[in-house]
Amino acid sequence: MKLSARNVIKGKVVKVTHGAVNSEVILEAAPGVQIVAIITRQSAESLNLAEGADAFAVVKASSVMIAVE
Amino acid sequence: MKLSARNVIKGKVVKVTHGAVNSEVILEAAPGVQIVAIITRQSAESLNLAEGADAFAVVKASSVMIAVE
Amino acid sequence: MKLSARNVIKGKVVKVTHGAVNSEVILEAAPGVQIVAIITRQSAESLNLAEGADAFAVVKASSVMIAVE
Amino acid sequence: MKLSARNVIKGKVVKVTHGAVNSEVILEAAPGVQIVAIITRQSAESLNLAEGADAFAVVKASSVMIAVE
Amino acid sequence: MKLSARNVIKGKVVKVTHGAVNSEVILEAAPGVQIVAIITRQSAESLNLAEGADAFAVVKASSVMIAVE
Amino acid sequence: MKLSARNVIKGKVVKVTHGAVNSEVILEAAPGVQIVAIITRQSAESLNLAEGADAFAVVKASSVMIAVE
Repeated sequence: MKLSARNVIKGKVVKVTHGAVNSEVILEAAPGVQIVAIITRQSAESLNLAEGADAFAVVKASSVMIAVE
Repeated sequence: MKLSARNVIKGKVVKVTHGAVNSEVILEAAPGVQIVAIITRQSAESLNLAEGADAFAVVKASSVMIAVE
Repeated sequence: MKLSARNVIKGKVVKVTHGAVNSEVILEAAPGVQIVAIITRQSAESLNLAEGADAFAVVKASSVMIAVE
Repeated sequence: MKLSARNVIKGKVVKVTHGAVNSEVILEAAPGVQIVAIITRQSAESLNLAEGADAFAVVKASSVMIAVE
Repeated sequence: MKLSARNVIKGKVVKVTHGAVNSEVILEAAPGVQIVAIITRQSAESLNLAEGADAFAVVKASSVMIAVE
Repeated sequence: MKLSARNVIKGKVVKVTHGAVNSEVILEAAPGVQIVAIITRQSAESLNLAEGADAFAVVKASSVMIAVE
C-alpha cells in the first residue's frame, strides 16, 4: 500500500505504554531522534508493537508545524 | 516557550514552496531523513523560512501513526 | 505495509482538483457516501490519482469527531 | 449548525469503549463500512452515545489521507 | 446538530483569503483574541463566510497543544 | 521559540484530569471562553500544569473548522 502521507520515517520501537483506550509508542528514527505516537491500544496490539520491533512513523504533512529559535 | 508537543525535531530547511494560502516546507533532520510540513504562507514568511535556515519540526504525538511492513 | 490508522476505507476516486500546494481528492466509498481529502499536490501526482482510480481513504481515529442530531 | 467539515457521514453506533479520559466509538456507516472515533469521554457521555444510537462521523478533509495498492 | 468537539468558540469573521483549494478564515472570538482556520474553499463559499459574519471556530480537543513560558 | 502555529492563545489552567496515557487540560482564555486540550500525561506533568497556572493553547490553523448557525 502506497500512502499520500509525505512523512514515513523508519525506526525501531523503544517503548510502548498501554492505557485503557490509547497506547504511547516511542520510535527511534536515528541516534538521538525519537518520535512519539499515540495510537489506539487495539492498533498497538494488532501491529504487535513491542520494544525492538521495526516500524515506521507516519505523519501527514498538514500535521507538522515549524518552529524557529 | 515550552510546548506539550512530544515531537520537536531539529533540522535544516531544504526547500520552501509557496501557494496562495499554504506553503510546503521540507526539513532535513538527519542524512536521509526529511520531514515535510504544510503551514500557512503567512507563517512561512513570518518565520523567514528559506533554504539553509535552522528550524524544528513540531508534531503532536496524537498526529503520528505507526506502520509495520 | 500495515497501518495503525483504524480507518482504511476502500473507494473510487471521483474528482481531483489541484492547487499550487494542495489537491482535493473526492472518493466514493459506497453509493451516496463520498469522502473528501486534502493532500499535497505532490502526493496526488505521485499516487497517479485520477477519476476512476481505486484508492483508500485513511483516517486516524483521533481525527474523527462524532455528532448527533 | 452547518459545519465546514467536508465529511459528515451518517451511521449507527455499534460499540463504545470508555477509558479514563478518552472513549472509542465505532460507527457503522454502511454494511461492512465501520468508522472508529476517539473522542473525550465527557463528549461520549454528553452525547449519550450507546450501541444502536444514530450518529454522524465528522472528519475535516485535511485529516484524510489517500492510499493506493 | 450536537458535536463531540469540545471547543466550539463563537466569534465574528474578520478576514477571508481564498486560494485555489483552501481558504484562510480569521475569526475574532473576543477583543484581541483571533482564531485562524484553514478550510476548503468550497466550504468557505458554501457557508457564505465573509467579513462581519457570525461564526464558530470548532476544534477537537486532541488537536490542541499547551505551551508555557 | 517562534511557532508556525497561527493560534497561540493565552489563558489560565482551570482543570487538569489525568488518564493513564493522556490528560485533559482546560484553559480559560477569557471570561466564558474555555479551551480544552488532550495532551499526553507526560507532557502535562513535565509542564507542571495545574489549576491556576498561566499557559497557552496552541492550535494549527488547519485543525480549526468553522461552523455557522
